[in-house]
Amino acid sequence: MFITFEGIDLSGKSTQIKLLAEYLTRLKKKVVIVREPGGTKISERIRDILLDKDHYEMADTTEFMLFSASRRQLTQEIIIPSLKKKSYVISDRYYDSSTAYQGYGGGLDLKMINSINNVASCGIEPDITILLEIDLQCWLSRKKTEGRTDDRIESKKIAYYKKVINGYKKIAEMNKKRFVIVDATASKQEVHENIVSALSNFTKKKKSKSSI
Amino acid sequence: MFITFEGIDLSGKSTQIKLLAEYLTRLKKKVVIVREPGGTKISERIRDILLDKDHYEMADTTEFMLFSASRRQLTQEIIIPSLKKKSYVISDRYYDSSTAYQGYGGGLDLKMINSINNVASCGIEPDITILLEIDLQCWLSRKKTEGRTDDRIESKKIAYYKKVINGYKKIAEMNKKRFVIVDATASKQEVHENIVSALSNFTKKKKSKSSI
Repeated sequence: MFITFEGIDLSGKSTQIKLLAEYLTRLKKKVVIVREPGGTKISERIRDILLDKDHYEMADTTEFMLFSASRRQLTQEIIIPSLKKKSYVISDRYYDSSTAYQGYGGGLDLKMINSINNVASCGIEPDITILLEIDLQCWLSRKKTEGRTDDRIESKKIAYYKKVINGYKKIAEMNKKRFVIVDATASKQEVHENIVSALSNFTKKKKSKSSI
Repeated sequence: MFITFEGIDLSGKSTQIKLLAEYLTRLKKKVVIVREPGGTKISERIRDILLDKDHYEMADTTEFMLFSASRRQLTQEIIIPSLKKKSYVISDRYYDSSTAYQGYGGGLDLKMINSINNVASCGIEPDITILLEIDLQCWLSRKKTEGRTDDRIESKKIAYYKKVINGYKKIAEMNKKRFVIVDATASKQEVHENIVSALSNFTKKKKSKSSI
């Protein structure tokens, strides 16, 4: 089963991925965790280029293509072989991040993004995508709590995040079958339980379908 | 004017680009030379990943996407601004290389390649593409002369180069308006003169068209 986590930063993805992996491991499942961009030797080299602060001149489409190159390598080298070995693969971000950030947030053409997403993912779709949802107010207050407001959050950045949050809503709406929206403003434990219950509902549905 | 050079390695691209740039400079033209992959700070970082011999596990499509990311950055950062300043831009390889190598040579889907080429090039087409053509025999004998046969040229590699050479022929056939095939087995000076005459024919045609 291929599970992806989506949401803006500070929505708690890493914490929830850790909790879910521990839960699945207790159930004796094989779990493989990957993150984007990165996850393979080549993809980590691409990540370095993407995160390098000196690269302020990077074109939006170059950025998207680098994410896609990293994704293709990760998919072919790790995700597909792990799924073949019947592991649970949990990915911290996948192609929906490109649609939300570079597409809805950055204004790149959504049709172009979808078509390249399809190539980058070898046509593989996540079985279930957990969208950890926090609103702008919550994001701002978490930024404050974590002492990350040294860098002035300008109105431009806020407008951008608004677009990304709304973009995620639209993507979830268009992919209802695999998307589960989880309120990420609740406590860590509550969020975790909601994720586990969403996963178990999904597995039940899948089983009942395959038994028809 | 945007001029691209194509052809397999040892076809003499760098030498001919140098000669053409000198010729244009003597005519008081502004000339910008770029190479692929590379040509900008970010594209050179991508080039490093592409050429790293440790990356034997790189997926063909990852490779293509990295070429495309490098190409997009080069196009947006250097090629378009230089063309706007009325420079002659000469590129050592451009998207036809992807079609020939990754497409015809490597067997990637040509429709997918064309569509991503279009994104990577911001929809810009070279005004003229010089294809320096050498056949397999000539390539093999040049490899010998240059003492580059230490690495055994296996039959697999020969079959691959055959496909690339034929691929270039097909691309030229499909883009007759901008392609000029130059016999690159002739002497350096002869090849140079043929390129200059092709360029001057092209300019005449363009002028007569714009005066209609």
